[in-house]
Amino acid sequence: MNERTVYFLSDQTGVTAETLGHSLLTQFDGQKFRQVTLPFIDTEDKAREAVRKINLAAADAEVRPIVFSTLVQDEFRSIVREADGLHLDIFDVFLEPLEKEFQSAPSHAPGRAHGMSDINAYMKRIEATNFALANDDGGVSRNYDVADVILIGVSRSGKTPTCLYLALQYGVYAANYPLTEDELESSDLPGFLLEQKHKLFGLTIAPDRLRQIRKERRPLGNYSTAQQVRFELREAEKLFKRYGIPNVDTTEFSIEEIASRILDSTGVERRVRP
Amino acid sequence: MNERTVYFLSDQTGVTAETLGHSLLTQFDGQKFRQVTLPFIDTEDKAREAVRKINLAAADAEVRPIVFSTLVQDEFRSIVREADGLHLDIFDVFLEPLEKEFQSAPSHAPGRAHGMSDINAYMKRIEATNFALANDDGGVSRNYDVADVILIGVSRSGKTPTCLYLALQYGVYAANYPLTEDELESSDLPGFLLEQKHKLFGLTIAPDRLRQIRKERRPLGNYSTAQQVRFELREAEKLFKRYGIPNVDTTEFSIEEIASRILDSTGVERRVRP
Repeated sequence: MNERTVYFLSDQTGVTAETLGHSLLTQFDGQKFRQVTLPFIDTEDKAREAVRKINLAAADAEVRPIVFSTLVQDEFRSIVREADGLHLDIFDVFLEPLEKEFQSAPSHAPGRAHGMSDINAYMKRIEATNFALANDDGGVSRNYDVADVILIGVSRSGKTPTCLYLALQYGVYAANYPLTEDELESSDLPGFLLEQKHKLFGLTIAPDRLRQIRKERRPLGNYSTAQQVRFELREAEKLFKRYGIPNVDTTEFSIEEIASRILDSTGVERRVRP
Repeated sequence: MNERTVYFLSDQTGVTAETLGHSLLTQFDGQKFRQVTLPFIDTEDKAREAVRKINLAAADAEVRPIVFSTLVQDEFRSIVREADGLHLDIFDVFLEPLEKEFQSAPSHAPGRAHGMSDINAYMKRIEATNFALANDDGGVSRNYDVADVILIGVSRSGKTPTCLYLALQYGVYAANYPLTEDELESSDLPGFLLEQKHKLFGLTIAPDRLRQIRKERRPLGNYSTAQQVRFELREAEKLFKRYGIPNVDTTEFSIEEIASRILDSTGVERRVRP
């Protein structure tokens, strides 16, 4: 099987080209890809350099490269077009129908999508990230009154990365609280959590997967034994049931999926859109 | 000006539809949008419910909705198509040229793009996030020998969110170290940083913007005075110059842009692709 080189070209970060390309490429099983992002193509020189790189890869391979491009300035797009490869360009395809619909011309100005178009959005994401850090792992602040959501679950069920993702991506105020041995044994939640019961959301995970994750962190001791892991998860699920706390099994999910499911299930609104 | 409702439809998280849509919509100045994400459309019922919501919005407005869709299963796509709006669908447009190129049929299986397609990728992102947390703000671990990059800069120049973003999005091991008054005054860096000089990357920011950010956090005291902020930034830039440390001015940049510029400038490879 020939490895196929895939280029993501952008006059900005390349995030849009990567996201689009990844969605499409994962539809094709059994293909092997080498992925290269060429961001910040905002001069003629950089556009020509990109063409040179793509043509070099094309000359070396038996199959031509795939080029996902989100360049908005016509002068650079026409240069990049010359490169040897299959070109897929969202602006080529979607700008015209939108132009018709809005009866207004696109700006063709680069750097809007993931740019500092909105200083408020930046501040909100930073503040939400600070909130997540200060309220991580049951930690210091416990400003649960201003939280949008409070994740609870056993150690290593995915609470911290999910909270940070919710903050960075959506500006959502997400706290997390690890269920302790005490709480698991008594099937009881502390008063400061019950006061915010409507904000609680539970994470659970398959025992085998949790053991695998915990072993990476702490291979020895009780922490990652089958018995301990099964006990904690069983009791956590009992707690969720007892208090009617919505929850999600994170075993098969990426961080993006866990975050999206929480927003979808709770109805918490994004404060920022990426 | 009529507000336009924009829907992002997905059988998964909606991240791809949102990213694509946002890139396109920011090309049109002066339009007002209300954005609604409808994720996890993976049953006929949910597809019909989406149609109902879109039609309701269409009936209420003078301009029809815009619908960005990334549904991969034909049965649900054909239902959603019935909704009243301008439909923009990446699979409609880009799947066929890729199918021809690969001479292989797409799987039309949902949930690949941001899914747990790769458990290793999940673990890498989690481990990188743990690394960023343990090595935040000059903190506890100082495992700089395994860092991919070490961000340095004055307080509130954007180090922490950038490190977390690099970890969550790309699995990159990013530590950060805040420049102290001592280091700024002496124009000297501690030995444990100089040992890793090739990994250092500086963040700087415009004085006015830094004051604005610091005031949000701590409105009183020396921390956010014009004099203090100017002093710190001037000395930090001197340090970058003295040691030849590459750096970026974050004033006009979003977190995504800062992260992309660091990867682009340092050549640090993504360990994971989103």
